[in-house]
Amino acid sequence: MFSRPLQSLLRQYSRLLSPPAVSPSPPALSLPRLHRALMATQVEKEVQLGPLRVAVKEQGDLIRAMKAEGRPNLEVQAAVSELRKRKTALEKKEKDLIPQEAKIDRGKLEDTLKRRYFYAPAFSIYGGVAGLYDYGPMGCAMKSNLLSLWRQHFVLEEGMLEIDSCILTPEPVLKASGHTDRFSDFMVKDEATGECFRADHLLEDVMESLVSDPKCPPEKKEEYQLIRAKADSYSQEELAGLFTRFSIKSPVTGNSLSPPMDFNLMFKTSIGPGGALTGFLRPETAQGIFVNFKRLLEFNNGKLPFAAAQIGKAFRNEISPRSGLLRVREFEMAEIEHFVHPEKRNKFEKFSNVADLSISLFSACNQMDGKSAESLTLGDAVRSGLVANETLGYFVGRIHLFLTRIGVDPGKLRFRQHMSNEMAHYASDCWDAECLTSYGWVECVGCADRSCYDLTCHVTAAKVDMSAKEQLSEPLTVDVVEVAPEKGVIGKQFRKEAKVIMDALAALSSSQAEAAEKEATEKGSYELEVGDKKYTLQRNMFKIKRYQKTVHVVDVIPSVIEPSFGVGRILYTVLEHSFGVREGDEQRAWLALPPCVAPVSCSVLPLSSNEQFSPFVQQIASSLKSRGISHKIDDSGGSIGRRYARTDEIGIPFGVTVDFDSLQSKTATLRERDSMRQIRASVSV
Amino acid sequence: MFSRPLQSLLRQYSRLLSPPAVSPSPPALSLPRLHRALMATQVEKEVQLGPLRVAVKEQGDLIRAMKAEGRPNLEVQAAVSELRKRKTALEKKEKDLIPQEAKIDRGKLEDTLKRRYFYAPAFSIYGGVAGLYDYGPMGCAMKSNLLSLWRQHFVLEEGMLEIDSCILTPEPVLKASGHTDRFSDFMVKDEATGECFRADHLLEDVMESLVSDPKCPPEKKEEYQLIRAKADSYSQEELAGLFTRFSIKSPVTGNSLSPPMDFNLMFKTSIGPGGALTGFLRPETAQGIFVNFKRLLEFNNGKLPFAAAQIGKAFRNEISPRSGLLRVREFEMAEIEHFVHPEKRNKFEKFSNVADLSISLFSACNQMDGKSAESLTLGDAVRSGLVANETLGYFVGRIHLFLTRIGVDPGKLRFRQHMSNEMAHYASDCWDAECLTSYGWVECVGCADRSCYDLTCHVTAAKVDMSAKEQLSEPLTVDVVEVAPEKGVIGKQFRKEAKVIMDALAALSSSQAEAAEKEATEKGSYELEVGDKKYTLQRNMFKIKRYQKTVHVVDVIPSVIEPSFGVGRILYTVLEHSFGVREGDEQRAWLALPPCVAPVSCSVLPLSSNEQFSPFVQQIASSLKSRGISHKIDDSGGSIGRRYARTDEIGIPFGVTVDFDSLQSKTATLRERDSMRQIRASVSV
Repeated sequence: MFSRPLQSLLRQYSRLLSPPAVSPSPPALSLPRLHRALMATQVEKEVQLGPLRVAVKEQGDLIRAMKAEGRPNLEVQAAVSELRKRKTALEKKEKDLIPQEAKIDRGKLEDTLKRRYFYAPAFSIYGGVAGLYDYGPMGCAMKSNLLSLWRQHFVLEEGMLEIDSCILTPEPVLKASGHTDRFSDFMVKDEATGECFRADHLLEDVMESLVSDPKCPPEKKEEYQLIRAKADSYSQEELAGLFTRFSIKSPVTGNSLSPPMDFNLMFKTSIGPGGALTGFLRPETAQGIFVNFKRLLEFNNGKLPFAAAQIGKAFRNEISPRSGLLRVREFEMAEIEHFVHPEKRNKFEKFSNVADLSISLFSACNQMDGKSAESLTLGDAVRSGLVANETLGYFVGRIHLFLTRIGVDPGKLRFRQHMSNEMAHYASDCWDAECLTSYGWVECVGCADRSCYDLTCHVTAAKVDMSAKEQLSEPLTVDVVEVAPEKGVIGKQFRKEAKVIMDALAALSSSQAEAAEKEATEKGSYELEVGDKKYTLQRNMFKIKRYQKTVHVVDVIPSVIEPSFGVGRILYTVLEHSFGVREGDEQRAWLALPPCVAPVSCSVLPLSSNEQFSPFVQQIASSLKSRGISHKIDDSGGSIGRRYARTDEIGIPFGVTVDFDSLQSKTATLRERDSMRQIRASVSV
Repeated sequence: MFSRPLQSLLRQYSRLLSPPAVSPSPPALSLPRLHRALMATQVEKEVQLGPLRVAVKEQGDLIRAMKAEGRPNLEVQAAVSELRKRKTALEKKEKDLIPQEAKIDRGKLEDTLKRRYFYAPAFSIYGGVAGLYDYGPMGCAMKSNLLSLWRQHFVLEEGMLEIDSCILTPEPVLKASGHTDRFSDFMVKDEATGECFRADHLLEDVMESLVSDPKCPPEKKEEYQLIRAKADSYSQEELAGLFTRFSIKSPVTGNSLSPPMDFNLMFKTSIGPGGALTGFLRPETAQGIFVNFKRLLEFNNGKLPFAAAQIGKAFRNEISPRSGLLRVREFEMAEIEHFVHPEKRNKFEKFSNVADLSISLFSACNQMDGKSAESLTLGDAVRSGLVANETLGYFVGRIHLFLTRIGVDPGKLRFRQHMSNEMAHYASDCWDAECLTSYGWVECVGCADRSCYDLTCHVTAAKVDMSAKEQLSEPLTVDVVEVAPEKGVIGKQFRKEAKVIMDALAALSSSQAEAAEKEATEKGSYELEVGDKKYTLQRNMFKIKRYQKTVHVVDVIPSVIEPSFGVGRILYTVLEHSFGVREGDEQRAWLALPPCVAPVSCSVLPLSSNEQFSPFVQQIASSLKSRGISHKIDDSGGSIGRRYARTDEIGIPFGVTVDFDSLQSKTATLRERDSMRQIRASVSV
């Protein structure tokens, strides 16, 4: 459209709109470094942080020693709780040491985002509902750009199988996954106002205040600390007992509280008219992939490894939603499940693509030692065993590349390893991508090696085979245990049903056969399930055969590496990291959004609302449209400076201004947002 | 990548991937016309259809006459019910007359779609849930292409404001929109099995069988017909009475039935821990736009007209889901709300772009006359008043262009006008885009002029101003009614609150002031609501002032034109219209999907799984990737013919085959799916 010299700028521009797909370098457009530049020097900071670091390390060492000595679990838990407290104090101090000038004015950012309709509280004309937000045109466009980059970066680049599964999920699925149990917290209710509190949090607060009372006798102190540490592991009855013992009342009104009740964080509903089928809104998109694993494996011709991906909404009925987009009740997720042979996790062909990438890693060890995150190449991290395997390391690298490409400040990004006490028992390693925001470090992406836990849950609950077949390079000799039905005895007792029973017995796996023998020996009989029916078989109804067999194929339940993205949190982080005010003008807020995620790519600004501008403006607009460049015409009047400010506020990276000269000379001005540089050039439409 | 002569083919190919945005011509790639070609000639058909057409017209004329005579509503309803029956008979006959060879083998299509994982019943490893489907990699990619074309065709092309609002919706919103009442049906339940039936449908069936009993006395016949016609308008008590009177039992088991119960088609849940806030899963995405209207208007600088759009999931708890993707409980919608000054609906600047487009229109009049749809240009349709206004006509045209572009057979697409009895009372005109499938004519898109109904509902319920300001070209003289508070009387009674009350009184609109006067005069007092509080004001606490005023700006509640797309239904229709079997080979099913929606654009097929093919295949693959062309490498072995068939089955439009010659000569074969034409050419990577 533009003739030289603008062509070169436009060429650069299109590169920014679709950055190279595999490049491991940070995005071409660097983000404002104001915050870091203004931070107190590292030395000054360390003087203040030193004692806090020592306090964390002392406690970390204590826990290591306790574990080495094999001390009781309860004691270790109490020590971990203290460690957590000291870590929090250290992080708070680190945050406090950021000088005022380098902090963003969150109020001003939020005002801008609401006023320019990136997002806003939902249903506000009806008084609103906490934890629900609607994305307006700017937020929706930005989210849509962000997701299409995600699709390009992960799904297309890695050849993943994207699916779109249901939000409505029947109870048995979430029973199997552990969500109906794991997502359950105990609540107490103000008996007069109905206000709800999490029982464990309230108990912690009460113990905290008892402990910090100077009149508290030392022998009691220890007990209270133990109770605080155990707060989230008590049973319903135990909690009820403690609430009675300490006469705990509502912290808001002082009213009496109901006994602790089960409260599940999933939204419950009923599917179908009968009311018999309980369903939930999915709390994550992952289960939709797991229940479809067999079909996906078949789609992949039965071969491992492969990855499936899904973008979609998930729901959590948070007790107290807060922090804007960070803790909401309805949110968008983008999840990947990479299925891999458990023994082949440490070999990932493309790992070499990210091995030299330097990443800020905050290891569990450093966390216990009161140290900060450290920069390491992924190659070194995997070689040293810090990151469990190449597959996990590869995804950590890809996540880093994605986040920095879309505008997360690499100086405010770290990968924090889960400590053993916070990791699920089945997970073998887990790293959270955390971003520093005005709310502190926020978990934006989780990246976990979940071993074969999820698929095994569904294999057990749904009684279906979900294994992949592994073709062995060398045949293997295995021990086989088989049930041999006693045809005569079974036939005599079960008559017509005998065949069904004998087929089911013959189909039992080796481990099931072992279990059948054990049950029949111990209890005198074995209970066989066939579909909905159960049959009680006496010990004399079957024999057990043991022999060896040579196999060329074995069943494998794959391990799962799960990168899981919180889209709203990432979007908010990018907005915060891009936010600034123009030097010398406190009122001019602007967003340095990378062009690839900016809601609109280019503004078109006629200098006057004079009608004779319209044809030329329309020509430029349709020229941009035909090149797939989103644009916004602002012919609202007002000074051109004011209108530039308006486009800066919504992060539009480029602007084309048409003035009176333009009409005669067919020229226009192209302005770049970050540098505010302007070039006049002729326009060929 | 390819040197000549393939370059020209590839150029054509990329045109197909992103078809021109505004062209009003049908898509470049035409769909199989087999079905229509094989249909019985029109003349032969008309011999059989003639009597049925006459029967419809007779009844249509009868209704017209009854209306003209002002006959009671109940009688008219009964006649309409008979008309509906005759129309159904006509449509069924039309469908039956399609010769067997021209019908698609739906079983074979569904088998292909399931086997190649376009979509499949959800949660099937747990026995499945009726009405829930998951999209696999092929369906998900196709849906994603379809939605991105939708966004390009509507949102970008028309500069619409796209938003993304919440699925969880609090009760007051859906109370205001009428969904908590309107979406409610009466159900009866088998008292033994718990199976549910829609009470009105069951009543209709019972009356139907009574009427068709030859022993039914003529005087009873008329009564039963009336009851059948009124079935969906009885109250709960009336229904209960009829079920008792006719001793209606479960049609499945013959068991007793419960009394009729209210059943709402929305999924209900509870938001927040207290259980006090009832919420629903939205039954449509439209309400999310209406409740945000004020913000959207402000975003558009207060100007009309403008359109907002939303793509997202919606939910309906269907009593009996059926017909695959056509009637499901969770589905994707794409909705547009075009807001326009009610008096300016008939002037739409871009209407001329579609005025010459010939569209198959099935008018309400033709439906009553037993005629078929007729081809008309939109210009003629609007000029003659058949289509209510230019705005509505423009969207009908744009919908037609969109559907045919993505692969709907234009010969199986018609726009059916709602008859006055099926149209909501507030709607002024409504046209459904219907597609002919093996299930009959299926409504895929609704396009309604909903006047100012929706916004007015929320204005009334939420008590907020949702009007746009219209700058008048000439000032207008209007009658003003104002409330003048009696300061002394109010102050004496309400003291501290007096100011709040007087401000609220002064802010009442003319119509509210009229209403206040009426209420106070009739009841002796007027109840004023301010926020959550209510104040009872005696007649002597205010006076009413009436005068005339000259205004330059007036408040306008805009009209809404609403095109609403059912994404799953459209996707299924495109699949059916693209489905065929290769001539001479019944087993070779294939999909003639337009390249712009095909799940994968290009296959890459190495003739042998020999390792020496790999580098060249990878070169081609990354060359395609860098051009943004999705591809699938099939190195699974098997004959090349078999593999072409596999790619045809999922509708991949292009294939690149690499053979032994390729390695030496750097050439490859490019194959086009529809013509099966192959060209050998050199490859420059």
